[in-house]
Amino acid sequence: MVVPAPAARAGARPRLDLQFLQRFLQIQKVLFPSWSSQNALMFLTLLSVALLEQLVIYQVGLIPSQYYGVLGNKDLNGFKTLTFLAVVLIVVNSMLKSFDQFTCNLLYVSWRKDLTEHLHCLYFRGRVYYTLNVLRDDIDNPDQRISQDVERFCRQFSTMASKLIISPFTLTYYTYQCFQSTGWLGPVSIFGYFILGTMVNKMLMGPIVAKLVQQEKLEGDFRFKHMQIRVNAEPAAFFRAGHVEHMRTDRRLQRLLQTQRELMSKELWLYSHPVCPLAQHPGLGVKPVLTVLPPVQNAFVCIYLISCFTTLIDLSTTLSDVAGYTHRIGELQETLLDMYLKSQDGEILDESEWDLDRAPGWPAAEPTDTAFLLKRVSISAPASDKPLVKDLSLRISEGQSLLITGNTGTGKTSLLRVLGGLWANTEGSVQMLTDFGPHGVLFLPQKPFFTDGTLREQVIYPLKEIYPDSEGWTSGRKLLCLAGATDDERIMRFLELAGLSSLVARTEGLDQQVDWNWYDVLSPGEMQRLSFARLFYLQPKYAVLDEATSALTEEVESELYRIGQQLGMTFISVGHRRSLEKFHSLVLKLSGEGRWELTRIKGE
Amino acid sequence: MVVPAPAARAGARPRLDLQFLQRFLQIQKVLFPSWSSQNALMFLTLLSVALLEQLVIYQVGLIPSQYYGVLGNKDLNGFKTLTFLAVVLIVVNSMLKSFDQFTCNLLYVSWRKDLTEHLHCLYFRGRVYYTLNVLRDDIDNPDQRISQDVERFCRQFSTMASKLIISPFTLTYYTYQCFQSTGWLGPVSIFGYFILGTMVNKMLMGPIVAKLVQQEKLEGDFRFKHMQIRVNAEPAAFFRAGHVEHMRTDRRLQRLLQTQRELMSKELWLYSHPVCPLAQHPGLGVKPVLTVLPPVQNAFVCIYLISCFTTLIDLSTTLSDVAGYTHRIGELQETLLDMYLKSQDGEILDESEWDLDRAPGWPAAEPTDTAFLLKRVSISAPASDKPLVKDLSLRISEGQSLLITGNTGTGKTSLLRVLGGLWANTEGSVQMLTDFGPHGVLFLPQKPFFTDGTLREQVIYPLKEIYPDSEGWTSGRKLLCLAGATDDERIMRFLELAGLSSLVARTEGLDQQVDWNWYDVLSPGEMQRLSFARLFYLQPKYAVLDEATSALTEEVESELYRIGQQLGMTFISVGHRRSLEKFHSLVLKLSGEGRWELTRIKGE
Repeated sequence: MVVPAPAARAGARPRLDLQFLQRFLQIQKVLFPSWSSQNALMFLTLLSVALLEQLVIYQVGLIPSQYYGVLGNKDLNGFKTLTFLAVVLIVVNSMLKSFDQFTCNLLYVSWRKDLTEHLHCLYFRGRVYYTLNVLRDDIDNPDQRISQDVERFCRQFSTMASKLIISPFTLTYYTYQCFQSTGWLGPVSIFGYFILGTMVNKMLMGPIVAKLVQQEKLEGDFRFKHMQIRVNAEPAAFFRAGHVEHMRTDRRLQRLLQTQRELMSKELWLYSHPVCPLAQHPGLGVKPVLTVLPPVQNAFVCIYLISCFTTLIDLSTTLSDVAGYTHRIGELQETLLDMYLKSQDGEILDESEWDLDRAPGWPAAEPTDTAFLLKRVSISAPASDKPLVKDLSLRISEGQSLLITGNTGTGKTSLLRVLGGLWANTEGSVQMLTDFGPHGVLFLPQKPFFTDGTLREQVIYPLKEIYPDSEGWTSGRKLLCLAGATDDERIMRFLELAGLSSLVARTEGLDQQVDWNWYDVLSPGEMQRLSFARLFYLQPKYAVLDEATSALTEEVESELYRIGQQLGMTFISVGHRRSLEKFHSLVLKLSGEGRWELTRIKGE
Repeated sequence: MVVPAPAARAGARPRLDLQFLQRFLQIQKVLFPSWSSQNALMFLTLLSVALLEQLVIYQVGLIPSQYYGVLGNKDLNGFKTLTFLAVVLIVVNSMLKSFDQFTCNLLYVSWRKDLTEHLHCLYFRGRVYYTLNVLRDDIDNPDQRISQDVERFCRQFSTMASKLIISPFTLTYYTYQCFQSTGWLGPVSIFGYFILGTMVNKMLMGPIVAKLVQQEKLEGDFRFKHMQIRVNAEPAAFFRAGHVEHMRTDRRLQRLLQTQRELMSKELWLYSHPVCPLAQHPGLGVKPVLTVLPPVQNAFVCIYLISCFTTLIDLSTTLSDVAGYTHRIGELQETLLDMYLKSQDGEILDESEWDLDRAPGWPAAEPTDTAFLLKRVSISAPASDKPLVKDLSLRISEGQSLLITGNTGTGKTSLLRVLGGLWANTEGSVQMLTDFGPHGVLFLPQKPFFTDGTLREQVIYPLKEIYPDSEGWTSGRKLLCLAGATDDERIMRFLELAGLSSLVARTEGLDQQVDWNWYDVLSPGEMQRLSFARLFYLQPKYAVLDEATSALTEEVESELYRIGQQLGMTFISVGHRRSLEKFHSLVLKLSGEGRWELTRIKGE
């Protein structure tokens, strides 16, 4: 089921190259969609604040030399004015600093919002999230990338922002100053030196970026291990797996920490470029000497210029972090886009699948009585040549329930995956002639699906979200089944029919916000019952049930199927029990290696 | 199943109080176990480096005024010497700076290692991880706390470390200097001002800490949502849940970002304390003026002292972060300890459960032929008074297989939980007279359990980990069952018996490292078969099977049970199918509300 990563992609080691630049620009497009976007305006604000800050710092830098003059002249008034000015500048400077920091933080939140929402859009579009998580293994830990790498990228990038943003201005200004006092020699030699330094740094940063990407993968693996234990705590406890899982989790931790250590020793060389500590704060320190010693002015203007470069080079570590996250996010983004474009060839109606526009007038003008039409269909697992089903022709129509049987691994669920559009068939044609949704086909997968939220939200899932004002829809429904009953009464009735009255007591009502994970609090039997309550509520024409009653007794199974029949559903079931046959008209038996057999059930 | 949080704990809002201090010290004990521990030595190194750095910076600060003298005297030799000294100091300073940073980073890794390993020890001891994740809901996102909050705590704390560590020294030194030039007035007023500042900051930080704790919870929730989608991608795709889950995930993101925004506007007030920019770098800037202007020396020494305090107050944001993480980690730590102490009352042998010491001589001196002895046992779900089983007396002995039947919610799995020691019985006594493990009782839980790793590791789980050199054990086994067969042959044979030969082809051998999640690549039927392969390999005397064949056909079920019987196992099964009865001697039927019925199967 897992497709190996394309060789080209696997071979590309993340570094500071053209690909990085492309990915970085791609992300910038998301962060700054237009010149008048909120982020761009905030960025401009940040620029103004940072420039103003430079100006104030410059003024503050002039004060000591002014004191020198004032004190030399014993000018008391001048002293007072100057002190007042100094206090004002100091207060303004501190206000600007905090405003700068605040703007950076707001930018961080805003960027994180935009970037995450952008990735969400790509991730949840169509069935990209399924393809990415189940069918492909070249993108590790997408959850980590979306939730954590984006966070760290925005955090680090916003840290860099205010320093980066003013460097063109300060660089230009001090280059000009340096040129004024030393001619070409000064700026050219300083630029030369720093271009050299940048090249050395770039070489040093290459392996750091690759290491960082690896660290993030391991961080994701470590987190996933913890998540697995959280989600599988009960089976693990039955196996007394604490000791073993302790060792395994520790091992992942060690691997992660080892990578972190390697990353840090690589980073050591980035820190240790010799920087003049005097040069670290232009406007401070040397200014007073300058004013009294014009002969050394040349040198000090150069020191200013050097200090600007130094600020830039000091960002190397942050930059290599940003580059690492850029690669991880960019890789994800490209893959998501790529998957969506590929999947679009086959299906266009994806967006409107859960469209309920026609719902109020249900049953709508759907002239055909056929859900699926299969013509000489062959199926094999993705990335495998071995056929599971060969040359299957089949018509699934209203009232003609189909039971699919067969041993493990013969492709029962795979056939449903093809019906559900999750997999592509290798040969033949599959037509879905009815909509997906409550007035068409509904799938109950083998593994029940619950979302976070109240009991009501589980039952009516996914209606509330798609059609928040589902009154129109339910009122249309009311005429058909439980005339006069409110939605609440209907939900309670269906929960009762599914044998879940006790669950309502446990959740203390339909709308009580519960903070638990539904997979933890329900037994497999209860999960299947709840899935049936959902089915009863949504009342599709066709119900595709994949071993939906395996954790229930035969009696309960029959009861649930009987209710479904009364509600007018046609079943496409996968199941093992003989007793299921009485609810179906046809049996499709899969025998593996492509063989199948379709028979009509006698009792019909 | 979920126990509400104790009111006392829920009410305690995290802030900078005594509880913070206690938790912080508790964590410090883990970070610095003794004075001669590696971390303590590294911390001392950091201290020396930071002090040395201060000294060098001080020397560098003297240089401009020396230049002033040298240039004034037109002393060329002096100029050369001074320049050489300056270059040396600059290089040394840069080396010290990078070494300081490097040591901080190493400390971060080392702290993270120690703290995470410590929490792992508490978390995996006994069945604490089960209690925490399944039975309690007062500790949100333990996975987040262990993997991310610890990481951030150590990161932020190591950032603070080098600044914090030298502050006592610089404070003392400059207080002394200030005292020398101004008498008591200077230091006392500065201390007074900063104590006031600290009090204001502490008040500001209280709500920030609480917000940060909330932010981390929401961050964990957001991540968990992503993880759920990753793990349940297929059922979600069957429900066309992309659109809905997109909205729900976005909603969690918005809640998180909103909290982050609130946090940031709260932090704004922390940044905006007026700080003298001149004072930010002692040793820089004002020194040259000092040397020429002794009259203002008093003021400048005071500025130095202020700058030391400022550095401390600048750490406020970091400190409030550290406080937030401290609360989350401390809360987890306390709960874990508390759970372990509580669980210890009942069980002491926990550690030796998977002890294989006696294994080579298997079957060992275990005189009893009884696995479980239940005397008037009553069971109810934790935090519920409703009895599931009442007054049950039962003896489970070798050769007397037991089938447990009953409807959903009648307590079948709960009874197994009591047998497995996961839940406590409310009345009566439960005795487990056989060890847990391959020569005693083995549970196959309802939800199969797989770990990460190769196919072999799944089959022999958890043997390899506990008994890496399992040669002795297998050689003991060989005599009993497959004389002469190697371990590989046995594993292959059992996989074949379980109907999983095709799986070996898919994984390309037993020991191929696979990077997938076993829950994703196996169908439920295959998971159950693989669990049986494990059962055959481990060959316990008693096999407790909780609906272990629900996804398989009756024929396969019979075949698997038959093999188990041939291997001499006694079954304790939960199941729904009539066909299971022929492998059991007794049927225990649970009817809910405490009622039960034990019958001997006629065919026996």
